[in-house]
Amino acid sequence: MSEPGSPLVRVLAVVGTGLIGGSFAAALRRVGQVGRVLGVGRNPVSLQRARELGLIDEVAGLDQAAAEADLIFLATPVGAMAPMLRELAPRLRPDTLVTDAGSTKADVAALARDILDERCAQFIPGHPIAGSEMTGPEAADPMLYHGRKVVLTPFEDTPGLLLHRLIRIWEACGARLSLMTPEAHDRALAAVSHVPHFLASAYMAGVVRAEDADTRLSLAGTGFRDFTRIAAGSAEVWRDIFLSNRAAVLRELDDFDQALRLLRATLEGDPDPAALEALLEQAALARRFWGGRSQMQ
Amino acid sequence: MSEPGSPLVRVLAVVGTGLIGGSFAAALRRVGQVGRVLGVGRNPVSLQRARELGLIDEVAGLDQAAAEADLIFLATPVGAMAPMLRELAPRLRPDTLVTDAGSTKADVAALARDILDERCAQFIPGHPIAGSEMTGPEAADPMLYHGRKVVLTPFEDTPGLLLHRLIRIWEACGARLSLMTPEAHDRALAAVSHVPHFLASAYMAGVVRAEDADTRLSLAGTGFRDFTRIAAGSAEVWRDIFLSNRAAVLRELDDFDQALRLLRATLEGDPDPAALEALLEQAALARRFWGGRSQMQ
Repeated sequence: MSEPGSPLVRVLAVVGTGLIGGSFAAALRRVGQVGRVLGVGRNPVSLQRARELGLIDEVAGLDQAAAEADLIFLATPVGAMAPMLRELAPRLRPDTLVTDAGSTKADVAALARDILDERCAQFIPGHPIAGSEMTGPEAADPMLYHGRKVVLTPFEDTPGLLLHRLIRIWEACGARLSLMTPEAHDRALAAVSHVPHFLASAYMAGVVRAEDADTRLSLAGTGFRDFTRIAAGSAEVWRDIFLSNRAAVLRELDDFDQALRLLRATLEGDPDPAALEALLEQAALARRFWGGRSQMQ
Repeated sequence: MSEPGSPLVRVLAVVGTGLIGGSFAAALRRVGQVGRVLGVGRNPVSLQRARELGLIDEVAGLDQAAAEADLIFLATPVGAMAPMLRELAPRLRPDTLVTDAGSTKADVAALARDILDERCAQFIPGHPIAGSEMTGPEAADPMLYHGRKVVLTPFEDTPGLLLHRLIRIWEACGARLSLMTPEAHDRALAAVSHVPHFLASAYMAGVVRAEDADTRLSLAGTGFRDFTRIAAGSAEVWRDIFLSNRAAVLRELDDFDQALRLLRATLEGDPDPAALEALLEQAALARRFWGGRSQMQ
């Protein structure tokens, strides 16, 4: 789409040069679609490491990023976004595109509207559905977004040209794009990501409270391993996710509660083996269908 | 332990020559601790395949197994065990050892007591904590039990010599042995295996009931993949497991319910971020500790 010598992004500023930001820079670099990469962040060691690894070309402040970058990619926790947007707002060039990678979108959209005001048209909230248990610049991988979904939640007044530009940039990273409202995004993510994490954590916290927890855990096998893997994630990161997507998470937890009651009813009192099997079969078929269709198996 | 030329098991009869039974025969064969292997089963195609794969030497009936085998390994679903024990009971030689691989033990122990009567001292219920999503003789693997836990739940009148023999046999397969009462086994397995499966199935059945299930599932990532993987398991097999371990499963589901309420309370009404993080941290540390200690990571 772009002519030789003219990459999709001439100057990219990555705020937060860990797994998410570092992989974004590396992905664009891999396909020759970025000129220079500025790295912005609070952690000098991490920035230095990102530079050594060739993820960024130079360390910069937010003011330099605002002055020079065509694209500013905010890859920081959602909680750190407000002060950053406040610092960016008065310095933003009118042709600079800003996007983020936060895992909730209604709160980010509200922040952007609030802080950037009429300039929020330059900001397109986004969420790449990709991650790893690893963190930091060392974990950055130019193929992290390859084949993965990226959700964008543009504002009503986002110019089509800007949106189109961001779509092309993500496509250059190998991602598949979805457009949604922030609310639909948050409900969907609550259902397929936040609630599983919540349940795995509740389950794990419960298991260790048993008197013979040690014996029990010594008998845990591969099913337990897979079911609980997400519960090992950062408590701080997930606390923020649950708090920022609280309403949707609570609503989806209610739905889970209903599904659990339904399944449990087939086992309680006078058990109903046929109904139990039918529900288990419904779940098994749905999971196998998803596994067959998904690239993640 | 045994002299050259005298394997731990001279004649092994494997009832059910799929993943579990086939792997047991293959494991003993690999270390030269079995002479001849008889394969017993209802499915002629599966038996034929087990023979072609060299898992068994010949196809036999239960009567021949009772007459010739030193060790009879019952690797059939728990539901199929009663008729089998009834057929074996009158034919069993006094020096034959019988064991099983069923995933619940109180029901198997009760069956054995009931059907084998005073001969139940020859039967040592067992449960190798190993498995795979694959089934059938093709999935048999001589290393399946290597490093895995095997629980034995001997009767009070099980002779020490017999128990010792079975322990040596399992150790020859590379397994690590635990001795427990059937009740403690069933509670522990309910906690670390059956309840995770129950929750993953309930969750999955709930997700597909949402109106926009398709959109949601298209955003599901690696966390979802791991959390739901067990829900793809055989509905028939798991129906039987839940029914045969019903009381323990319901009790452990109550414990989970309590743990879930506790975690949910930190998010509801006036959220308590510190308490939320503390519970998430407890779960994360427990999972990381288990992962570090376990061979399954």
